[in-house]
Amino acid sequence: MDDPARRQRDSWAANAAAWVRVVRGGGIASRIAGTDAAILAALAAVAPRRVLDVGCGEGWLCRALAAQGIEAVGVDAQPALVEAARAAGGGRFEVLDYAALAMAPEALGRFEAIACNFALLDEDLAPLLRGLHALAAPGGWLFIQTLHPGQAPATGWREEAFAGFGEGFVAAMPWFLRDTGAWLALLRESGWSPGAVQEPRPAGGGAPLSLLLTARA
Amino acid sequence: MDDPARRQRDSWAANAAAWVRVVRGGGIASRIAGTDAAILAALAAVAPRRVLDVGCGEGWLCRALAAQGIEAVGVDAQPALVEAARAAGGGRFEVLDYAALAMAPEALGRFEAIACNFALLDEDLAPLLRGLHALAAPGGWLFIQTLHPGQAPATGWREEAFAGFGEGFVAAMPWFLRDTGAWLALLRESGWSPGAVQEPRPAGGGAPLSLLLTARA
Repeated sequence: MDDPARRQRDSWAANAAAWVRVVRGGGIASRIAGTDAAILAALAAVAPRRVLDVGCGEGWLCRALAAQGIEAVGVDAQPALVEAARAAGGGRFEVLDYAALAMAPEALGRFEAIACNFALLDEDLAPLLRGLHALAAPGGWLFIQTLHPGQAPATGWREEAFAGFGEGFVAAMPWFLRDTGAWLALLRESGWSPGAVQEPRPAGGGAPLSLLLTARA
Repeated sequence: MDDPARRQRDSWAANAAAWVRVVRGGGIASRIAGTDAAILAALAAVAPRRVLDVGCGEGWLCRALAAQGIEAVGVDAQPALVEAARAAGGGRFEVLDYAALAMAPEALGRFEAIACNFALLDEDLAPLLRGLHALAAPGGWLFIQTLHPGQAPATGWREEAFAGFGEGFVAAMPWFLRDTGAWLALLRESGWSPGAVQEPRPAGGGAPLSLLLTARA
């Protein structure tokens, strides 16, 4: 049996350059249609001084936050993505995988808000979510934006082939889809208090673009 | 402007006979595929002595509960449906609209569980949900099964034309779709503590058949 977590890591290494290109080129329709705006609005609503962007990729969210005067720290396991993020500036970026992040490195400081924007792709997330408490300021907020389960034919391990994302994607990415109730249960089990749940839709109408969960330390 | 709540009431009067026929004939695919089983399993899990079935229609849920030895009381605003329920037996059935139910008629007694199975179709539900507290036993459970927002192109007032439900449906029914977050917020505003959220799927795989919310008094 293959190891989906390892294939997932490998896919990000193989697809890094294509990912930078598609994100920076506005090539992911759902992000332009509303999910970028949704995570930014959710973060802005709690007026954080510092934000931790977990799984920051090439850094667009940190750059957008920095443009609003918010101090942003992005972490990602994939060195090529962190390198691209650093080159574009707008925040502090560190190479850290989720196991390292779960140990709550003190040097990162504390954050009023932690964002996981389409970045929680594994089956076992409880260690990371428990570890994030130590990085949250007292009463700090956690925002998880993820794929909406409402159109998916099944929960569990699924495969993103990046079809329609343009050229350069050479490896499919396994990722774990859970339903809304499983997310809420996971948050509670990890010591977070779930709050608002949003299902952002396109401005002109349409099915939900994502599931956006809010929780508090 | 038309009044959707009034058209909704009128549609149930006009469609009552067709509704009895389609439900008793197993003609609603999603119910057979999983939503009937989902509400029954959710109720059975809390081992209630008495269950209130809000918007009981022709009474199938009360009959199924009675077959498990659970005392079931069904209420519905539509006299023709209550009449059909009484004729089939298996529980106590009363004609009561939601305004009357919100006043928590003492004669109904208290219930360890209250089920609203595809029965909350209005925009303004807070008065009913607040009123149900007085009908819940201490620590009593509330189960709401409803249409899943994940495939719908928009929230708000929508129209059920009963296409594919067979003959005899002569009036479309306006109903109000809200997303998962709005349901959870509504429960909290109405004094209920939301618990598990389920998205029952067909046994062989497929998109969620419904949204099934649990709350506690």
